[in-house]
Amino acid sequence: MTHAVSPLARPFPVIPPIAGVTLRVARAGYKDWGRCDLTYVELAQGTSVAGVFTRNVCCSSEVELGRANIAQGQARALVVNAGNSNAFTGYRGREAVEAIMDQIAAHLGCAREQVFVSSTGVIGVPLPKDKAQAGVAAALGAAPCSWQDAADTIGTTDTFAKGAMATAMVGGKTVTLGAIIKGSGMIAPDMATMLGYVFTDCAVAPAFLQDLLSTASARSFNCITVDSDTSTSDTVLAFATGAAGNAPLHGFDSPGADAFAAALHDVCLQLAHLVVRDGEGAQKLIAISVSGAVSNDSARRVGLAIANSPLVKTAIAGEDANWGRVVMAVGKAGEPADRDRLSIGFGGIWCAREGLPLSDYDEAPVAAHLKGQDVTIEVDLGLGQGRATVWTCDLTHGYISINADYRS
Amino acid sequence: MTHAVSPLARPFPVIPPIAGVTLRVARAGYKDWGRCDLTYVELAQGTSVAGVFTRNVCCSSEVELGRANIAQGQARALVVNAGNSNAFTGYRGREAVEAIMDQIAAHLGCAREQVFVSSTGVIGVPLPKDKAQAGVAAALGAAPCSWQDAADTIGTTDTFAKGAMATAMVGGKTVTLGAIIKGSGMIAPDMATMLGYVFTDCAVAPAFLQDLLSTASARSFNCITVDSDTSTSDTVLAFATGAAGNAPLHGFDSPGADAFAAALHDVCLQLAHLVVRDGEGAQKLIAISVSGAVSNDSARRVGLAIANSPLVKTAIAGEDANWGRVVMAVGKAGEPADRDRLSIGFGGIWCAREGLPLSDYDEAPVAAHLKGQDVTIEVDLGLGQGRATVWTCDLTHGYISINADYRS
Repeated sequence: MTHAVSPLARPFPVIPPIAGVTLRVARAGYKDWGRCDLTYVELAQGTSVAGVFTRNVCCSSEVELGRANIAQGQARALVVNAGNSNAFTGYRGREAVEAIMDQIAAHLGCAREQVFVSSTGVIGVPLPKDKAQAGVAAALGAAPCSWQDAADTIGTTDTFAKGAMATAMVGGKTVTLGAIIKGSGMIAPDMATMLGYVFTDCAVAPAFLQDLLSTASARSFNCITVDSDTSTSDTVLAFATGAAGNAPLHGFDSPGADAFAAALHDVCLQLAHLVVRDGEGAQKLIAISVSGAVSNDSARRVGLAIANSPLVKTAIAGEDANWGRVVMAVGKAGEPADRDRLSIGFGGIWCAREGLPLSDYDEAPVAAHLKGQDVTIEVDLGLGQGRATVWTCDLTHGYISINADYRS
Repeated sequence: MTHAVSPLARPFPVIPPIAGVTLRVARAGYKDWGRCDLTYVELAQGTSVAGVFTRNVCCSSEVELGRANIAQGQARALVVNAGNSNAFTGYRGREAVEAIMDQIAAHLGCAREQVFVSSTGVIGVPLPKDKAQAGVAAALGAAPCSWQDAADTIGTTDTFAKGAMATAMVGGKTVTLGAIIKGSGMIAPDMATMLGYVFTDCAVAPAFLQDLLSTASARSFNCITVDSDTSTSDTVLAFATGAAGNAPLHGFDSPGADAFAAALHDVCLQLAHLVVRDGEGAQKLIAISVSGAVSNDSARRVGLAIANSPLVKTAIAGEDANWGRVVMAVGKAGEPADRDRLSIGFGGIWCAREGLPLSDYDEAPVAAHLKGQDVTIEVDLGLGQGRATVWTCDLTHGYISINADYRS
């Protein structure tokens, strides 16, 4: 089943080659489809790796193994299987992942722990080992491909290929970050959601790369939601080959660390926004800015309560400035809030301030704002200095069609 | 806007008159509609009252006043306004509620605190005091009406009138419970959801009535969800007139207390199920039974995570035995779970046991079960003795149509 390209789609960016990163794709045939579905990325010796993973306790073997293998800090290869998530498949699923790791480790002459595997697709069907190994063999012999080819190949229900790029000056060297991501449903925060991969030629020590990735994730992937559902396979990995030749970054006292951190955050935020833009059935991108909370974390949780409210999401789909539903969502968030200090706005225009509808509220400019593709909701809790922005999409008939008509 | 009657509707039951309870309805004209929208219930002197209220911190003045007035334990009247929730309306909204209370207290010669008011409808528009007071005056002069008339009048987006009845033998007397409820959207648990009212001629001390209502709510209203959204006005009140002449119930050592508690729970569960049956867009009633949890509370939270998952709800709408989505929802619940002990079934047929899909799983009977209106999902966590059942409905195009086309 294919779906129309999201109206919120963005063109794939120009991402230059990144030294130490070679992309290849192949057909493993996990589903009966005429497309590549196995992505193989070879990484130069000495590549640092960091990762954030789903907090779903029913996670896949890929997630379990990846989480364990991050500890040793080095990566030589990444394999992404599309069409079968291999989650909830017991020992048979795990054997297939280990077979892929062993096959590539033998080919590269590296430790098995330096091979990272992700899988995405249906839950509960063991990844077919034969198809996986034949697919890996085909990928090992394939010609290198483009970023867009890789982005297309990791996708499943995605309606457009998603990538991001940034550069930074680090110790006199220009370093480049290139990244791809897939995901459009089963997208909820509080963990790394979806499958995302960031590659850079910057030299970064693994522990610091992990710190930076965790921080960037908290303000990007963990601030988006499509449907409040959380995949069993969600993974974001960052790989730093070091080929740019900068003095390796070990912490914020390393020259250029701030610039690299900013670029990494920028790339993660670009990726996160692209996932929301491909949210199943999305017609509008909604940015919810919460201020005046007792803390930034509290602001984020209030924002997510609004972003996950079906009644708010359907109101935006209907282009209805229904700020009462926003009040409701604030009140149910379980966070400190005071009805009589609460202010709500759309598109930068306040509808209600300090607990009361504005007597001179003019709905016309708000209605015009809601007709656009990019909608903003502003909430001020009037309690403290905490703030956060959270992104989601509207809830439309398209979401129902995609998810009720889908057959597992 | 009117919607087609839910396919899951039930006929209104036969509820006999309850001594000490007189129902009347009138037209306050809160909206431009040709129907009664104000319900007035007069209660005999000495009526005990208990209540459970929304935990939404942005609650209405009605909820604030009702919660405060429950403490004195006695009620003489109930007013329910339909079409305007009066929530988020500041002091003007509160003044309208107090005006209604004063008007009725003067009429009955009772304390203002013995008059309970609920309102349901749009948020953010102060209840018009003039219309309310004229409506109350009309109701005071109206002829008594039937239970079904009252149930129709408290409704807003409801597609059918909802009522329940039970009897019990208490100290040699037959006591009767009659109840009405409204609600079809913005329905989430963890509080008394919707507006529900239980009336009985049983004599029950206020404190014990509160204990019983809180307990019954925990296993009924707090175990249902339609859309995970939580109204700012949700209220369930129980009124006991004592006209049956039994020795008043003060605790479980009072003769007949167990029988009355069972009847109250029965009525609350009937009401809760009716709300789910009128869930916006509902085509199927889904009962989710969770066993093997570390506690009953944990089981309930796992059940609600499944019940609130858009992906599970759309799968049921699509009649798809997508047990992988149930695994996902279990894993994201934030409760103890072990992928390798988890079992999932539909309609009493296991699809996966102890972390593995069943090798001899036959989808045909499950598919047949899912084509029906009443769907069950069974989850065994394999960890302990905790169990709970949670009810919800499927997520369909109807929900989107109702909530995206609605104009505030």
